[in-house]
Amino acid sequence: MSHKNTAPAQFITFEGGEGVGKSTNIEFCRRLLEQQGIDVIVTREPGGTEIAEIIRDELLKKPHNERMSDVAELLLVFAARAQHIEALVKPALERGCWVLCDRFTDSTIAYQGYGRGLKLETINQLKTIAQLGIEPDKTFLLDAPIDVGMGRAKARGPADRFEIEQLDFFSRVREGFLAIAKNSPQRVCVINAAQELSQVQIDLKSAIEQRVLEIQTVEIHAIDTQKLDAQKRKSEQQ
Amino acid sequence: MSHKNTAPAQFITFEGGEGVGKSTNIEFCRRLLEQQGIDVIVTREPGGTEIAEIIRDELLKKPHNERMSDVAELLLVFAARAQHIEALVKPALERGCWVLCDRFTDSTIAYQGYGRGLKLETINQLKTIAQLGIEPDKTFLLDAPIDVGMGRAKARGPADRFEIEQLDFFSRVREGFLAIAKNSPQRVCVINAAQELSQVQIDLKSAIEQRVLEIQTVEIHAIDTQKLDAQKRKSEQQ
Repeated sequence: MSHKNTAPAQFITFEGGEGVGKSTNIEFCRRLLEQQGIDVIVTREPGGTEIAEIIRDELLKKPHNERMSDVAELLLVFAARAQHIEALVKPALERGCWVLCDRFTDSTIAYQGYGRGLKLETINQLKTIAQLGIEPDKTFLLDAPIDVGMGRAKARGPADRFEIEQLDFFSRVREGFLAIAKNSPQRVCVINAAQELSQVQIDLKSAIEQRVLEIQTVEIHAIDTQKLDAQKRKSEQQ
Repeated sequence: MSHKNTAPAQFITFEGGEGVGKSTNIEFCRRLLEQQGIDVIVTREPGGTEIAEIIRDELLKKPHNERMSDVAELLLVFAARAQHIEALVKPALERGCWVLCDRFTDSTIAYQGYGRGLKLETINQLKTIAQLGIEPDKTFLLDAPIDVGMGRAKARGPADRFEIEQLDFFSRVREGFLAIAKNSPQRVCVINAAQELSQVQIDLKSAIEQRVLEIQTVEIHAIDTQKLDAQKRKSEQQ
C-alpha cells in the first residue's frame, strides 16, 4: 500500500525565537518527507500567498512615518493568516499535500501576547475568526536560550524590526513558546536547538518518522474498521 | 463663553450606499461647523492615515491574481480602522477637534455583514477589539433608493469593485443601513438623499445645528453641576 494519496495530509508548523535554525531544519524535514514519497509544500507566515506577502512586506516589515498600533499589527497578522489558510494551506491539505509552515499562531501568541502584552483572549478570538478550524497537527518548537538564538541571528545579517527589541522581550517570547508547549504536549514537540545541528536533525528525524508512523497506524486502523464494518453489514444481510 | 475648546469634541460619521452624496455633504457640514468657530477635520475609511491608506490602496482596492478571502478582507478593514482610530481619530477628539468621517463601522456591518453575509457577531467582536471604545456620537445616514445612488455613482466615473456587484447586493446593503438606524435611533439620523441637494442640505444644517445645541446644553448642564458641587462643598466647609 502506498502511503501517498491515502494517509491524511499533515499541517506541521515550526516555531521558535530568532536564529534557532527554522529555515535550515524545515528544508531538512521537507527532504526527509519527500524521500518517503510524500507530497510536501513549504510556506511561511506572515506571508505565503501574493496578498499575504503584500501584508508582510508593505505593512509588517517596512518602516512607516507613523507608529503602527499594536492592535492594527495583530489584525494584519490575522488577515495575512486568513488569506494564507484559504488560498494555500486548506487547498493543499485537501489535495493530500503535507504543509510545512515557518511560524503560525503560536508565534502570534508568543510575540504579540507574551512579548507585547496583548490579551491572549483577543488573540484566541481572532484565531477562531481567521483559521476556519485549521489547526497544526504537529508543531516543532526549536528552543534555545535567547543569547544562542540572537547570536546566530546577528551573524546572519542586519537586525530586523523584531530583532532590535530588547532581550527581556525575547525572554518573554521564549517563555510564551514554552508555556504553549506545556499546555499542548500532544501537539508540540520541543527540540533542543542549542545542540549541534547534526544532533538537532537526529532529533527531528526521529520525531518526523514517529509522526509518519502514527499517521499510517491511524490509517490502517481506519481501513481495518472499514473492513470490520463491511463484514458486519455483510453478515447482517445474510 | 466660547464654544471652541470647551464643548466635548464630536465624532460624526457619514454613511450610505454608493453615490448618495457623502463627499459633497461632508464638505458642507465642515464649512457649517467652521463658521461656528469649531475645529474640524475630515477623514475617511478605510484609510485616513499613511498605514491605513496603504491597506486601502494595496489591498482593498487593487485587483490581485488570487481571490481575497472574505475573512481576510474583514480583518484588513478593521486593521485599517484600528490604525485610523489610534493615529488620528482619538488624538483629534482628545485635543477638542470634531472629526467628520466618510464611512465607519456601520458600512462594515452593511457591506460585509448584510451584503456579503459575514456573521454580525464576528463583526461585533472585531469592533470591540479594534475601536478602543471609540464610537460615533452622531451618524448621518444618507439614504436613497439604490437606483438613484447607483445612477449617480456611474455618472461620476468608472465603477469600482463594490459598484460592479449586483443590485440585490446593494439592496441588502441598504436594508442593513436602515436596520442599524432603526436599532440606534438616538445616534443615527436618516437623511433622505433622494431629494434635491438643496433640500438635503437644509435637513443636514438643521440636524447639525441641533447637535451643536445639544452639546452646548450638556456642557452648560455640566458647568452648572460643577457650580452646585462647589457651592455645596463651600457650605459644608462653613
